[in-house]
Amino acid sequence: MLERFHVPDDIAVRVDDKKLKEVVEKIFQSRGISEKDSQIASDVLLSADIKGVDTHGVSNMLRRYLQYYDDGIAKPDADWNIIRETASCATVDCDRGLGLIVAPQCMDIAIEKAKNTGVGMVSMGNGRHLGMAGYHAAKALEHDMIGVCMTSSSSGVVPTFASKAVLGTNPIALAAPAKHEIPFIFDAATSTIATNKIRLAQRLGVQLAPGWVADKNGNPVMENFSLKSTNDPDEERLLQLPLGATRELGSHKGYSLGVVVDILGSILNGNLAGPLSNNVLHQNHFVAAYSIEAFIDTKTFKELMDKYLKALRELPPAPGYERVLYAGLPEHEESQKRLEKGIPLHPEVISWFENICSELGIEFDIIK
Amino acid sequence: MLERFHVPDDIAVRVDDKKLKEVVEKIFQSRGISEKDSQIASDVLLSADIKGVDTHGVSNMLRRYLQYYDDGIAKPDADWNIIRETASCATVDCDRGLGLIVAPQCMDIAIEKAKNTGVGMVSMGNGRHLGMAGYHAAKALEHDMIGVCMTSSSSGVVPTFASKAVLGTNPIALAAPAKHEIPFIFDAATSTIATNKIRLAQRLGVQLAPGWVADKNGNPVMENFSLKSTNDPDEERLLQLPLGATRELGSHKGYSLGVVVDILGSILNGNLAGPLSNNVLHQNHFVAAYSIEAFIDTKTFKELMDKYLKALRELPPAPGYERVLYAGLPEHEESQKRLEKGIPLHPEVISWFENICSELGIEFDIIK
Repeated sequence: MLERFHVPDDIAVRVDDKKLKEVVEKIFQSRGISEKDSQIASDVLLSADIKGVDTHGVSNMLRRYLQYYDDGIAKPDADWNIIRETASCATVDCDRGLGLIVAPQCMDIAIEKAKNTGVGMVSMGNGRHLGMAGYHAAKALEHDMIGVCMTSSSSGVVPTFASKAVLGTNPIALAAPAKHEIPFIFDAATSTIATNKIRLAQRLGVQLAPGWVADKNGNPVMENFSLKSTNDPDEERLLQLPLGATRELGSHKGYSLGVVVDILGSILNGNLAGPLSNNVLHQNHFVAAYSIEAFIDTKTFKELMDKYLKALRELPPAPGYERVLYAGLPEHEESQKRLEKGIPLHPEVISWFENICSELGIEFDIIK
Repeated sequence: MLERFHVPDDIAVRVDDKKLKEVVEKIFQSRGISEKDSQIASDVLLSADIKGVDTHGVSNMLRRYLQYYDDGIAKPDADWNIIRETASCATVDCDRGLGLIVAPQCMDIAIEKAKNTGVGMVSMGNGRHLGMAGYHAAKALEHDMIGVCMTSSSSGVVPTFASKAVLGTNPIALAAPAKHEIPFIFDAATSTIATNKIRLAQRLGVQLAPGWVADKNGNPVMENFSLKSTNDPDEERLLQLPLGATRELGSHKGYSLGVVVDILGSILNGNLAGPLSNNVLHQNHFVAAYSIEAFIDTKTFKELMDKYLKALRELPPAPGYERVLYAGLPEHEESQKRLEKGIPLHPEVISWFENICSELGIEFDIIK
């Protein structure tokens, strides 16, 4: 399924990841973002492109972020700060800074706290788009910690039994290190699919599967259908279903996980969320780091993780499937490919880059 | 759906909750459980019966617990203790004590830590069955904290693309207080349905819905079917599906949430989990408490929770549905009914109580 959202090989233009990152940095700087913050932002974006999470990479998000700055929705020089703090916790006001830039720094705060007490948690209000949640969670790995990240995002998902989409897709990410195995990095919307996937499906003209969305009354659509590729904003206002899709299959669980994310990501920092939110661009976050050494010898944990993850990927596959995966493994394998062959971009995205680079006087020589 | 697993009204025998609790306490004591521990255990069990969570109440679980003691699987006088500790974290060896009894006490440890640092977390290894996870999470509410509880349980769930059931149903619970609204108490298996629901469906002769289980090769069964009510252990070895049911509907998310629970509940305390576990009765747990005051004024949080939860339950319902619920609300409403009318037990369960009470010399006069 990952593949079906990638740009088809026959039209993809492969670009060098390091050169693309430099270009993206310069574009961010053109909006008044500091050099340091631009580096952070482009690292988060490129990390998604390298892992094959195209929904959260440059092609799908960079234009949107620039628009946020141009429209005054996000603040380029956001003066985010800690408004309450204990030994293990902090509450941060993001001052309308992109989560893309503020979350990695809040993750650093959580990691420092975890070094002292075993756990660090930061609830981040008044924020904007986070980027790939798994990036922030995975920052904990190099410190031998477990990382957590959640985003209480804008409306789109219809609660079980409701006829109105009032919850965000509210993703949850958790990363845990292993010794030799590829780390476990889980990152998923609490809806059946992510909003960005619908947008990308529209661009690529692929079909939506049964149970991915609801009709305007909240009834799950249980057949395949195509989205027209238009600029009509109504096309983007489909009701998304919570993970589980229907009540019988457990949509109340996906719905409740979405509520959990609103509570930790928004309400805990005093921000409005879900049905109370009148700002669809408003996004609040929650990050945490758990020190492994606080619970167990790190070496023992990592060796046990190796055994556990290896046992999962060596399970006998069901008929018709080649092998069993775990979260983080396919993204790692895609990274290996893309670091070697380049990141595949749609020709339309290449044109956009050429135009904006020409406009800003940035050299654009990144095609492999 | 809650109702379809309740004992039908025409055969149910209504019993008094307080009297039932006393009887259950005495039965636990007959197995060498201390008075204090017996009180804790019966409080957890009865709490499930009062809330209408019959899968985790006396009728479905008490016999099983006694069997664990009789077979030496669980230890009546478990000497559980903290084996590692930091300001915010603790690792506990449960010494084969029932989670039912050890988890509430570990939750107390987490709450004490959260009073000091903002967060407390306890990873509990070498444990046995937990009972209703939501009970332990909800212990945080009276301290104005958010409570979390997870259980890394025995095999039954088949990972996405696999043909072997190696993960537990690994439930996740989170409880958060409100001011006037009924608190949010989420408690759900990361499978499409809980193991106990299959067992109860078998006893009550109700059908299993499409997407609840997989055939022996790991393929989701997408039609309705009935389980025969037999004592054949093979009937209980169906492969359960992760939340999401099929890959297209997001079963990899339910599968990964199950892995998250194994990591926090088992691997973090050095215990085997999932595919490594060769002991299907082995269950390990994770509990946590987050102090609300560490992040925000508790009053502000609770008022915002009130607005948020009220907005959810006042959403316009989809056609064919009466209203929108949130986790904790239907269970609260059922409690009100059962505290007044009594807890409905199946006549077969009443007979079992009559027999065991007669055998142990316990007075059995609990019918309303």
